[in-house]
Amino acid sequence: MRTLNKVYIIGAGETKYGELWEKSLRGLAVEAGLKAVENAGIFSKEIEVLYGSNSLAGTINGQENIGSLISDFSGIAENNIPAIRIEASTASGGAAVRQAYLAVKSGEYDVVMVGGVEKMTDIYGSEMIDLTSSVLDREWEAFLGATPAALAAMSARKYMKDFNVPKEALSMMSVNDHLNASKNPHAQYRNKITLEQASNATPVAEPLNLMDCSPISDGAAAVIVASEEYVKKNGIEGVEILSSAASQDYLAVHSRKSIYRLDSTVLAARAALGKAKLKLDKISFSEIHDSYSIYGMIELEDLGFAEKGKAKDLVYEEIKLNGSIPINPSGGLKAKGNPFGATGVGQFVEAYTQLKGKAGERQVKSPEYALLQNMGGTGSTSVVHILGGVA
Amino acid sequence: MRTLNKVYIIGAGETKYGELWEKSLRGLAVEAGLKAVENAGIFSKEIEVLYGSNSLAGTINGQENIGSLISDFSGIAENNIPAIRIEASTASGGAAVRQAYLAVKSGEYDVVMVGGVEKMTDIYGSEMIDLTSSVLDREWEAFLGATPAALAAMSARKYMKDFNVPKEALSMMSVNDHLNASKNPHAQYRNKITLEQASNATPVAEPLNLMDCSPISDGAAAVIVASEEYVKKNGIEGVEILSSAASQDYLAVHSRKSIYRLDSTVLAARAALGKAKLKLDKISFSEIHDSYSIYGMIELEDLGFAEKGKAKDLVYEEIKLNGSIPINPSGGLKAKGNPFGATGVGQFVEAYTQLKGKAGERQVKSPEYALLQNMGGTGSTSVVHILGGVA
Repeated sequence: MRTLNKVYIIGAGETKYGELWEKSLRGLAVEAGLKAVENAGIFSKEIEVLYGSNSLAGTINGQENIGSLISDFSGIAENNIPAIRIEASTASGGAAVRQAYLAVKSGEYDVVMVGGVEKMTDIYGSEMIDLTSSVLDREWEAFLGATPAALAAMSARKYMKDFNVPKEALSMMSVNDHLNASKNPHAQYRNKITLEQASNATPVAEPLNLMDCSPISDGAAAVIVASEEYVKKNGIEGVEILSSAASQDYLAVHSRKSIYRLDSTVLAARAALGKAKLKLDKISFSEIHDSYSIYGMIELEDLGFAEKGKAKDLVYEEIKLNGSIPINPSGGLKAKGNPFGATGVGQFVEAYTQLKGKAGERQVKSPEYALLQNMGGTGSTSVVHILGGVA
Repeated sequence: MRTLNKVYIIGAGETKYGELWEKSLRGLAVEAGLKAVENAGIFSKEIEVLYGSNSLAGTINGQENIGSLISDFSGIAENNIPAIRIEASTASGGAAVRQAYLAVKSGEYDVVMVGGVEKMTDIYGSEMIDLTSSVLDREWEAFLGATPAALAAMSARKYMKDFNVPKEALSMMSVNDHLNASKNPHAQYRNKITLEQASNATPVAEPLNLMDCSPISDGAAAVIVASEEYVKKNGIEGVEILSSAASQDYLAVHSRKSIYRLDSTVLAARAALGKAKLKLDKISFSEIHDSYSIYGMIELEDLGFAEKGKAKDLVYEEIKLNGSIPINPSGGLKAKGNPFGATGVGQFVEAYTQLKGKAGERQVKSPEYALLQNMGGTGSTSVVHILGGVA
């Protein structure tokens, strides 16, 4: 038997992303959670289960069992609300919302909180590079010296050569992110950058420079997911999760079929559009996982917005807030920031805010449907959601 | 709308538990997964999603993104099957099966694999104590010197005093575990122990000694979860997951209402029995999370098998394989072993094997229903499942 339970987002909240030296892991999580509860206009005790999204707290903060930690500190442990943690590296956030979606769809829960958090500034330097490499294949990639930036650079080099793409096109992804982030009070970097600045920044892993790479971020984001029954009973105007899909590719990049095609993204996007019975041209805007500018380009293609090698035609005008397909109105991973466990949940916060028409200065004009793509590591996991309509 | 999709276990497999110096994290996971697939008599490519359960690989093995790792190495990444990791410290296994149960119940999937794995012998000594403490509240417990064993010992001391329970009763839990494990080829310790040996072992945290504490273990376990539709279509004799429930308590022990009552277990057990519409006396046997002998005693009471302070009346005869309520026919955490991420999944392997009547020497006589209790840390999370009947 197949079910038809519809699932909605009814509230969203996030902290500012940034280098938040003065804030703790648990403090960030609770701040975002309380904002989401307040935004939804519900009582904390109505929440029936908490899905915590976190990637690296075990290694960075010596704290596993994050679900319990958040539950305890936010006071909902008092209500014996179960809490578990979802980890799919940098796709943890999207994966956690997907679990919440399935849990509500199964009929077991009516109100679920998803909270994503990461506190990355507690370590730094080579130790951080080593830790971010824990999302790669440790034995087959990281031990041999590969880092996330190095793997992205290899993709970029071959992509630029095979499709005759100038480095300038990659830089334009970051220029767009910074422009949008300048209008987002929660963004880590609110400075606009010029194409020249984006092109001439300090090299990281050539051809990628500092302006091609998402930063080390602290931050948290939370959404409240609810059943159709709950939304109707309480007369809430939620935003429907029209579809949810996840797909997988090899963990180690060398095993994949192509170095510049993210098969997990191709398949998850296709499945999500199919389930939502929507064509891509109905999408009003998209939040994509551009942890490196090259991935932003590749994702535009793998999601279907451009043919392979042709994203360069979109990055100058089309992806702008007032373009044909606004990309990352939030500021994206480059400028809003990339606190691993929070990143995917933060995409929902932005989409919910946009679809409710409350994004202020960075509001996309009359958006109807949003496509969110959250990616794990260098593409081993992709989770795609389509949101739309106001109940 | 509520759904009535039934959910079944259709296959199970596990590695031997133990100090498996010669085996890798990924090797263990794949071994268990392939055994489960073979046992279910399905093709790997029929699996639609993988839930990986793991507690500490980020810290021990420098490997997060475990879902992707297992998916990749087992060859199912080739089929682009999504894989995510569930973490609820030592309750990760039960929590992962619960997510699989919800995913099938939601109607999105027909065949799901749950794989739990832990490779704990890659580190040792004080480093291990520190890492196992990552499942506690790091800032409020572990930094101040608390360890899992120390917290269990505090509970034991007060419990023994308040209810006039001799240490001997705690030791009997371990005697029973070792007796059952002697009949389980996958168990870490297959030696029987006498009450005298259990009472006089090396002290760990008084009153608890070495024979009261579950060991450091490597191991993996996997089950295949399937929908009613799939089971019927393929004429498979699965074991039904009659109910699934999770509950939560404060992470830090000092915040809890009682030091010797596990509220998360009380509530999860009550919910699971309620959902299954079963009275406790219908349960044929139970696998409980006795990471320390004292928790075994407390759990017998909190699950409802005895009144508070009265578990001592069960531990000499009733909990034996041929007693009124056989406990841990597998050998339990003390003797079968406790590879954190695998432990909860391993309980399902045992229950499935028992309910199918294939447990050989340790077979419980004509079992009808099994109750499984998996606990996170010192009790912050409890997940309870009831299995029964053959489809």
